[in-house]
Amino acid sequence: MKLATYKNGSRDGRLLVVSRDLTRAVDAAAVAPTMQQLIEDWAARAPRLQALSDRLNAGPVVGEFAFDPALCMSPLPRTHQFVDASAFLNHGHIMEEAYQLSVKKTPGIPVLVQRQSDDFWGPCDDYPLIEADNVDFEGEFAVIVDDTPMASTPEVCASKIRLVMILNDVSMRAHLFRELQMGFGFINAKPATVFGPVAVTPDELGEAWHADGRIHLNMNVSRNGEWFGHPNGREMDWSLGSCWPAWA
Amino acid sequence: MKLATYKNGSRDGRLLVVSRDLTRAVDAAAVAPTMQQLIEDWAARAPRLQALSDRLNAGPVVGEFAFDPALCMSPLPRTHQFVDASAFLNHGHIMEEAYQLSVKKTPGIPVLVQRQSDDFWGPCDDYPLIEADNVDFEGEFAVIVDDTPMASTPEVCASKIRLVMILNDVSMRAHLFRELQMGFGFINAKPATVFGPVAVTPDELGEAWHADGRIHLNMNVSRNGEWFGHPNGREMDWSLGSCWPAWA
Repeated sequence: MKLATYKNGSRDGRLLVVSRDLTRAVDAAAVAPTMQQLIEDWAARAPRLQALSDRLNAGPVVGEFAFDPALCMSPLPRTHQFVDASAFLNHGHIMEEAYQLSVKKTPGIPVLVQRQSDDFWGPCDDYPLIEADNVDFEGEFAVIVDDTPMASTPEVCASKIRLVMILNDVSMRAHLFRELQMGFGFINAKPATVFGPVAVTPDELGEAWHADGRIHLNMNVSRNGEWFGHPNGREMDWSLGSCWPAWA
Repeated sequence: MKLATYKNGSRDGRLLVVSRDLTRAVDAAAVAPTMQQLIEDWAARAPRLQALSDRLNAGPVVGEFAFDPALCMSPLPRTHQFVDASAFLNHGHIMEEAYQLSVKKTPGIPVLVQRQSDDFWGPCDDYPLIEADNVDFEGEFAVIVDDTPMASTPEVCASKIRLVMILNDVSMRAHLFRELQMGFGFINAKPATVFGPVAVTPDELGEAWHADGRIHLNMNVSRNGEWFGHPNGREMDWSLGSCWPAWA
């Protein structure tokens, strides 16, 4: 199923089920008023939302309306922990070469970063940028996970993935290298993150949701309507189940 | 007023008002079932809780019970952003000398760290420690703030402080220097944080809540019943209003 969160003036918005072709939606409130409520009670509520999704994809349902991404918040507008992983080693190599950095990575341990999670932005929100901050953008996959015990294996971690999203990881490069060299992570360098309009269950990705813990799809990135790049998830050095604070 | 959160099996617990002498408590559910609901609607709900606190401090109230810190979660059991500030420069100097580090700080900018905020621990919880992680402890003040606009002055930031807590900032030193040298902040080095049993409004601190944005009180730290130290908040190089991601 595909889910979205419409703005309604509240901090957590209003959860919707969206049709597979992204043209129609219906309110999810009878099952879960917000994404937060859904993910905290996934086992009980997800099957009922899936049934609603099945009906929506089969034909007209009572209360459906045209889906408009411009009215969306992030599918999960805020969360209690957002950890960003550097899953493509090549990205790190390019950054180190371009900026003449020397990052003391530990073999066998992925780079993970605690990130700001109180204020995710919607896909069509105007984002105030200050030119002196030297803003940059990165396309990334995100996953929303169920409760996962500490010290779980990558396979168990991967089995806890409930939803997949895409995001624009906004960086302020003017602050990034100062903060990186200081060593305590990012504050000004990594402000609010922008998410795509929908969160989808892994089954929506079909065969692209691969048994190797990677999403075998191109991420098509454009800037002001011009093609920028299309990295493919199959090139991830770390699988989604390995990019986990609880992995060790 | 003084507030606490009792365990009740839910992720956010059950909010209580606690008497000034910490011996008696009463349920806050009629005003705010959880601390999260209170802080999101502080202006409307805090005055009603203050009235309940005044009645509790004046004499017996219906439904009151003996307060037991062992039944407490953290006053705020989880949150959407937890930022840890290094407000005592001396602490940084000692760490750099002891571990022969060279931290490239920027004059005029406090060290701030994005921290894990999905799982705060209660004051009397058993905390599983692995000796090889080389655990350490630090006594700190924490504040809970109201919504604060970006680019607010330190004075405005300080005016948004609603509640004060104390915490044990648990560190796993075996991971800390590896993660510090990598530059992306802490994952394994800074696990779940342990909070004291109550959150108090600044007026509870009387004159110790000082106009210079510091808490002029000793923090008495002991370990296994033995005195360890008593740093005083007046020695903070950065005021509470300056330790803010939005300060710049």
